[in-house]
Amino acid sequence: MQELLVVKIGGNVIDSPEALTKFLRSFVTLPSPKILVHGGGKIATQVAAKLGVETNMVEGRRITTQPMLEVVTMVYGGLVNKNIVAQLQATGCDAIGLTGADAAVVQAHKRPVVQIDYGLVGDIEKIDAARLELFLKSSLTPVVAPLSFDMKAATLLNTNADTMASAIAVALAEAFSVNLVYCFEKKGVLSDPTDDDSVIPRLTPELYAHHKNEGNIYQGMIPKLDNAFAALQNGVKKVTICHADQLAEALDENQTKGTLLEI
Amino acid sequence: MQELLVVKIGGNVIDSPEALTKFLRSFVTLPSPKILVHGGGKIATQVAAKLGVETNMVEGRRITTQPMLEVVTMVYGGLVNKNIVAQLQATGCDAIGLTGADAAVVQAHKRPVVQIDYGLVGDIEKIDAARLELFLKSSLTPVVAPLSFDMKAATLLNTNADTMASAIAVALAEAFSVNLVYCFEKKGVLSDPTDDDSVIPRLTPELYAHHKNEGNIYQGMIPKLDNAFAALQNGVKKVTICHADQLAEALDENQTKGTLLEI
Repeated sequence: MQELLVVKIGGNVIDSPEALTKFLRSFVTLPSPKILVHGGGKIATQVAAKLGVETNMVEGRRITTQPMLEVVTMVYGGLVNKNIVAQLQATGCDAIGLTGADAAVVQAHKRPVVQIDYGLVGDIEKIDAARLELFLKSSLTPVVAPLSFDMKAATLLNTNADTMASAIAVALAEAFSVNLVYCFEKKGVLSDPTDDDSVIPRLTPELYAHHKNEGNIYQGMIPKLDNAFAALQNGVKKVTICHADQLAEALDENQTKGTLLEI
Repeated sequence: MQELLVVKIGGNVIDSPEALTKFLRSFVTLPSPKILVHGGGKIATQVAAKLGVETNMVEGRRITTQPMLEVVTMVYGGLVNKNIVAQLQATGCDAIGLTGADAAVVQAHKRPVVQIDYGLVGDIEKIDAARLELFLKSSLTPVVAPLSFDMKAATLLNTNADTMASAIAVALAEAFSVNLVYCFEKKGVLSDPTDDDSVIPRLTPELYAHHKNEGNIYQGMIPKLDNAFAALQNGVKKVTICHADQLAEALDENQTKGTLLEI
């Protein structure tokens, strides 16, 4: 089975032009086929503030009103996505930027209101794996913004990029041997959150449960790891969590950096 | 030879949500394969003002500074492009939004400074017809934003949408019998600019020269018509200029609306 790399790059890296360029130079050297899923970053909050659109966060999650959806469509789908595509193209990677609406690759519905109304936020329903395969077979590298698409409501929906990367990886696991990598600003999953070098090289569900109970793994790492383990349980071959600067080393056969998840 | 429709929709129509939706409903009913090229509209100027980015116009053309390029990337490549793609997808047209950087479909270089420095504005060098054909053969409808791509400088460039539509139509004229349509807020080319109903049904280069000399055709219509005649001279089969509301009638065999250009 042909290998496919699905890489997610987080918001903190996107917020630093130097860190982003460094990451993209490394991404370009990785073998194709590959897909890049990017997060949003803080630019949306800054642009929203200047446009007079209020940012409301509940438990670390953005409440997406209609004006905020317009801001994230501009920033994630326009500014950030096209900046990444332009940099990749200029360094020899034939990238194509996509939101969930483009070729309807990521379809979703608005998250039902339980306790909190997150607004125009999408729960993914369906990835069009055939379309993505078509692009990959045409030597294109899809660059996916964290915006899914509600066909019935004819609207984009704000969507967590970790979830998007995981859903895309799972959808393509039938056709490819998928290697999913989450890149962010830490060196991997840490056993001691106060020590940046305490990287856990291999993480099993048992070890994850243990570190969660001990309080070593908490907050934003929990949904990230839940997504990551779910991907493995649904056919993804390999999941790695690493620093954006250490992508090559984390993917190396000897894996000298980052955390490899195992089930 | 298979027919291909290349439709350009202007900024004034994009500025009115109702007019845009009406136009898109009509566009959806037209036979495929087809490509939509859209203009910018005034939203960029409004967004720029709110973000504190100054708009400088010289002879009706926007001077594109780096901050203004970021605004048009957000507005044209994000907000406007994705709004159109979402509406088309929801009404049964499998649209895919593209800037010139996506799959490097529209490559350009920065316009050389002669008398005026227009800033980050692109003169088109190359359309990747093979890529566009691939999308069309996969039943996709490309929706192209007025942003070209400079591969060497790794940057998008602001580009006139009329020119973009014309260049795309010409590039595809080898593989298709191309029908290029410019849709805007007038009923066609007018012989009396003060009379909205004075539509010239058929316009030849001789008649165009005559009306230009008489001062009936002036300002923005001149580059539009120059582009349009250039397309005909370079292999495009048919060029029509019509009101966004009268697209179907203008394309009808009997052409009851709009202006048909002939060479």
